[in-house]
Amino acid sequence: MIETARSATSPSAPAEAAGAGVAETRLDPITGQWTVFAPHRDQRPDEFQVTRQVSSRTETCPFCRGHETDTPQPVWIGRVDEDDVQIETTGLDRCADFDWSVRVVPNKFPAVAAAAQPPLVSHPQRDHDLFRSRPLCGGHEVIIESPEHVESLCDLDLAEAALVFRAYQDRIRFWRRNPHIRYISVFKNVGGEAGASLRHSHSQLIAVDQMPGWISNLVDRMRRHQANTGCCLQCDLLRAEQKSRQRVIAQTDSLIAYCPFASRVPMLVRITTKKHQACFADLDQSTVEEVTSLLLRVVSWLQQIHPGTAYNHLLHTCPPRLSDSSEAFHWSLELFPRLTQIAGFEWSSQCLINPVLPEAAAALFRRCAAAENPRMVL
Amino acid sequence: MIETARSATSPSAPAEAAGAGVAETRLDPITGQWTVFAPHRDQRPDEFQVTRQVSSRTETCPFCRGHETDTPQPVWIGRVDEDDVQIETTGLDRCADFDWSVRVVPNKFPAVAAAAQPPLVSHPQRDHDLFRSRPLCGGHEVIIESPEHVESLCDLDLAEAALVFRAYQDRIRFWRRNPHIRYISVFKNVGGEAGASLRHSHSQLIAVDQMPGWISNLVDRMRRHQANTGCCLQCDLLRAEQKSRQRVIAQTDSLIAYCPFASRVPMLVRITTKKHQACFADLDQSTVEEVTSLLLRVVSWLQQIHPGTAYNHLLHTCPPRLSDSSEAFHWSLELFPRLTQIAGFEWSSQCLINPVLPEAAAALFRRCAAAENPRMVL
Repeated sequence: MIETARSATSPSAPAEAAGAGVAETRLDPITGQWTVFAPHRDQRPDEFQVTRQVSSRTETCPFCRGHETDTPQPVWIGRVDEDDVQIETTGLDRCADFDWSVRVVPNKFPAVAAAAQPPLVSHPQRDHDLFRSRPLCGGHEVIIESPEHVESLCDLDLAEAALVFRAYQDRIRFWRRNPHIRYISVFKNVGGEAGASLRHSHSQLIAVDQMPGWISNLVDRMRRHQANTGCCLQCDLLRAEQKSRQRVIAQTDSLIAYCPFASRVPMLVRITTKKHQACFADLDQSTVEEVTSLLLRVVSWLQQIHPGTAYNHLLHTCPPRLSDSSEAFHWSLELFPRLTQIAGFEWSSQCLINPVLPEAAAALFRRCAAAENPRMVL
Repeated sequence: MIETARSATSPSAPAEAAGAGVAETRLDPITGQWTVFAPHRDQRPDEFQVTRQVSSRTETCPFCRGHETDTPQPVWIGRVDEDDVQIETTGLDRCADFDWSVRVVPNKFPAVAAAAQPPLVSHPQRDHDLFRSRPLCGGHEVIIESPEHVESLCDLDLAEAALVFRAYQDRIRFWRRNPHIRYISVFKNVGGEAGASLRHSHSQLIAVDQMPGWISNLVDRMRRHQANTGCCLQCDLLRAEQKSRQRVIAQTDSLIAYCPFASRVPMLVRITTKKHQACFADLDQSTVEEVTSLLLRVVSWLQQIHPGTAYNHLLHTCPPRLSDSSEAFHWSLELFPRLTQIAGFEWSSQCLINPVLPEAAAALFRRCAAAENPRMVL
């Protein structure tokens, strides 16, 4: 099967909503970053249309059932039984053939040194003012989402997919108990353009002992908003989005999904709880199932609009050891396809150019939602 | 011709220099950003090796000689004659068949509104605190580097390639005379993964009436260093690199090329003048020729190490209207291949993971330099 990539809007995108010819920048109140919107740029010719070969299962996939010894020993195993879920976190080293639905293992090629490792040897020049370096410690785990060789969360049933998010919760709780951990990132890369190196459906968690400057800036902004207004910025934002209705794509009892006003990339969708909640790990199981179900719907809409596209999803949850931030921080899950490249201007200015207005993106998603349920009211 | 991409180090990369298994973060003193170095991650399997089709010339390339009417009217034309260079910037609308070597035209799909346009119509919600937007004005130009369908600067002779940099200088000078312009970005995207949409060798210039937050942060850092030490940060850095020698790859009379200690991406090379110089536009013509010649050598080394790789080069030059910054700012040209993808962790933390230590990158470049001139001493 051969697919073409890199067209940011489908041919059926409503051109009038894209405000052709107008360039504007928009401020993201959470990150403080401005993004350039240039919808007409999407119409430029492209000699580099990529042809993507979608291969079938490889015999050597280390994430498939029967290849458990190709990965390090699991730290968490979950199994969906008839009516129930079983979780195991101990004794897994003695039980290589333990039956599983979702399996969490340390990454064989970690981006960080294991938390248990002694402090690293100093870099010869790290004491030089201009050549400062620090060891980075923590954990890097892979959440293997099925023993079958599935390539999309949508190939799982709801209970199996919800178990993936249960794994996120348990592993976040595990890492936030470690007093050295300052930041936990949970994410999913689907497809080579999104940074995946294996096709078998999986997510990753990276927990580190340093807070990235970007995150501490973002936390400061949310704290400032809370101090100035008495409200959580995400709560205020989602209320404003509900009022405006232009960018909301779905609502459930507990959740809202919308395309943020200043989305850095095309077709970005943010899912969060309408009720204030700082940490994803603290959601109850019925809300986790609601998140799972809504995410699967959003992924299926994305696949209808951009078949076979690579995408990422990122879970933003309150960083550990910020005891005063539970009022200010609000978890969210962001999903976005990889339709544009980071090019020279973006690298030099760190200001992204987004060729798709979020209003146009939301209209496309809403069309899919309406086809799924014609009587749905936002 | 089919090539494979996405291997960040060549098979002959010195593994010992890469410090396998050690994770560290390094601070870039210019940007204030930390980058994670995880060299061993380069060894992970990759099911998404991209097969890249390198096509031959298309009949419809709008940048080729004879297709001048497919682009907007030029604003600058340069021609290499036998012993001289001719530049034209006026009357170009009346002279469609003017002979040219390098041609600068407004981008047909600009990322910014033309500076001459009246202020844009307000976005209906821009007065909302959480939905702030601003029009973005300025210019977006394409520097077409040859009337022939060449795909690399290396296919030009030195005089032709130097004329491209002369165009950079003239267009920077043009835009900095405009009192509204706050930031000028000059860059080159080569290959689809680097954000190019056409193969014909070209660069771009974007001049905007807002300074990106990233740039103002970077200027502040350079000013602070200057205020604290009395020295330019780039001058101090290049002296430290000369002293350390680990990451220097080439030096000429006026220039140094090195792989910066905290490079955000693999194989990044920075070229700058050893003597303090804030603005690229103010370099004299012999130095511009030296820059051109050194850049062509670096590109040819990169092509030897990673044949057919996509890459960007970015010109950092002192932003206009910062009269007090000429002591603090120092121009540089950065070149880097696109070997890694921005994946989930990087998107959520804005902290990049670089699998190639700059010491290992520099060793690879130096090997190419030594093969070119075995008696070269750094």
